[in-house]
Amino acid sequence: MIQRLAVIGVGLIGGSLAAALRRRGLVREVVGCGRDARNLEQGVTMGVLDSYTHDPAEAVAGADMVVVAVTLGATRGILELIAPALDASSIVTDAGSTKVGIIADARLALGAHFPRFVPGHPIAGGERSGVEASNPELYERHRVILTPVAETAPAALAAVRDMWEATGAEVVDMAPAHHDEVLAATSHLPHMLAYALVDCLAGLEDGRGSILDYAAGGFRDFTRIASSNPAMWRDIALQNRAPLEALCARFEATFNDLRQAIARGDGAAMEAMFTHAKQVRDAYLRRSGKP
Amino acid sequence: MIQRLAVIGVGLIGGSLAAALRRRGLVREVVGCGRDARNLEQGVTMGVLDSYTHDPAEAVAGADMVVVAVTLGATRGILELIAPALDASSIVTDAGSTKVGIIADARLALGAHFPRFVPGHPIAGGERSGVEASNPELYERHRVILTPVAETAPAALAAVRDMWEATGAEVVDMAPAHHDEVLAATSHLPHMLAYALVDCLAGLEDGRGSILDYAAGGFRDFTRIASSNPAMWRDIALQNRAPLEALCARFEATFNDLRQAIARGDGAAMEAMFTHAKQVRDAYLRRSGKP
Repeated sequence: MIQRLAVIGVGLIGGSLAAALRRRGLVREVVGCGRDARNLEQGVTMGVLDSYTHDPAEAVAGADMVVVAVTLGATRGILELIAPALDASSIVTDAGSTKVGIIADARLALGAHFPRFVPGHPIAGGERSGVEASNPELYERHRVILTPVAETAPAALAAVRDMWEATGAEVVDMAPAHHDEVLAATSHLPHMLAYALVDCLAGLEDGRGSILDYAAGGFRDFTRIASSNPAMWRDIALQNRAPLEALCARFEATFNDLRQAIARGDGAAMEAMFTHAKQVRDAYLRRSGKP
Repeated sequence: MIQRLAVIGVGLIGGSLAAALRRRGLVREVVGCGRDARNLEQGVTMGVLDSYTHDPAEAVAGADMVVVAVTLGATRGILELIAPALDASSIVTDAGSTKVGIIADARLALGAHFPRFVPGHPIAGGERSGVEASNPELYERHRVILTPVAETAPAALAAVRDMWEATGAEVVDMAPAHHDEVLAATSHLPHMLAYALVDCLAGLEDGRGSILDYAAGGFRDFTRIASSNPAMWRDIALQNRAPLEALCARFEATFNDLRQAIARGDGAAMEAMFTHAKQVRDAYLRRSGKP
């Protein structure tokens, strides 16, 4: 049972965590912290929060569990603000999309408290944002990756794992650098491709308007992630620069092979590549059990 | 009113066209042609077809309208087979994803009948295939592009336009080469990117299995088109080689700009690109009226 949960950043991620714990009776009190008073009021009205404050230090005072679920770019500043106000026994975790950079920031910002910081990343999201999008079932059957380091206290790690498992999530541990490589591949690179594709096509006009108007459903699906928040993705690309750049280089090599096959009309090479990709994706869909 | 419609290739595209015309009472008799007897029987059972044959020449005999909706790679062979059997007044159209190559093939295969060939491309599709996926509403509010050439008889063009408009489609004319450039951008390039992405990531294992297992919903959307038919996409890439290769080069340049920005940690350049892409995509969504 969490006595006092402080949620810094009450959006889809933080709000859904609080809602999930609340529904299961696993938290006594939830205090929210953010800048948008209307959003926080909404959290209270919905019963996700008991109270709120705009001051991160005030929010964490007396909290046994602190969840930092702000944007990547704001995380370091929040850790610096809360460090002096943390109870000696309180556990801190985050929900950031990259881990190596946040861990370095946390080590500096939290100092002696760093062993009670458990780096985390729930692999979940949605089109909507803000506390009003909170969903107590958001994490059911979703993965939450925890990336403890040598200093991380086993009891803190266990508490954060228990918290996430209680929401229905499947919790896995991973080395921080490996997490960042995996996410660069499965999330960050696809976002870079979607943004670059739309940007590449944006300049192509046909005299009657944008050629995008002739796009079919596949294009909408393919570019959905290009409607994501630009500042958030700038921060992710900056934080995860080295692994992402390596993946971009790897992709460029693969894509260039395909372009060469197209240029020389090598149908066999193309079909082999397409068939391999289809097999890999279809196998992944079967494993994931999702359409 | 079409007296006898011959549909060569009774799949989602051909079957849905026949079903749409039938529902509106705009066709008297529909004869299907294909290789798969079970699929054709199914078409008769569903009432989409009145009869069927495995012989394209037999199918087009006495037909005033012939729709060739086979794969791109099979189209030329079909045109050669039906040419000697066409009535002098019958109109022929197709549904291929590229137009310049098919027009060249049709000019050779159809000879004196070529002015009554109207090159066409309905921009519609779906995850399912075969006549059982037929949907009389498939074309409603979808675009059908017709790419007539100098020799195309105005009456033939008008008849094919009327037929598609009757299904609820919005019919637009376009020069064949322009069609192929537009489709290279909005459809063929995205497919190449999706195939290349999955192929690029397929080799990345993390010791516990594929890293794809950590992918979230965005990845599934983004790579959906990588589960498309490899042989079909090989044919499209071969047929549309020059415009597609040019688009691939354009994409490589844009993507490399982004990769350089990531490498040098240039957050401003990244944010500008992401913001532009998001604005372009959001504007396209508003125009299309689809989510």
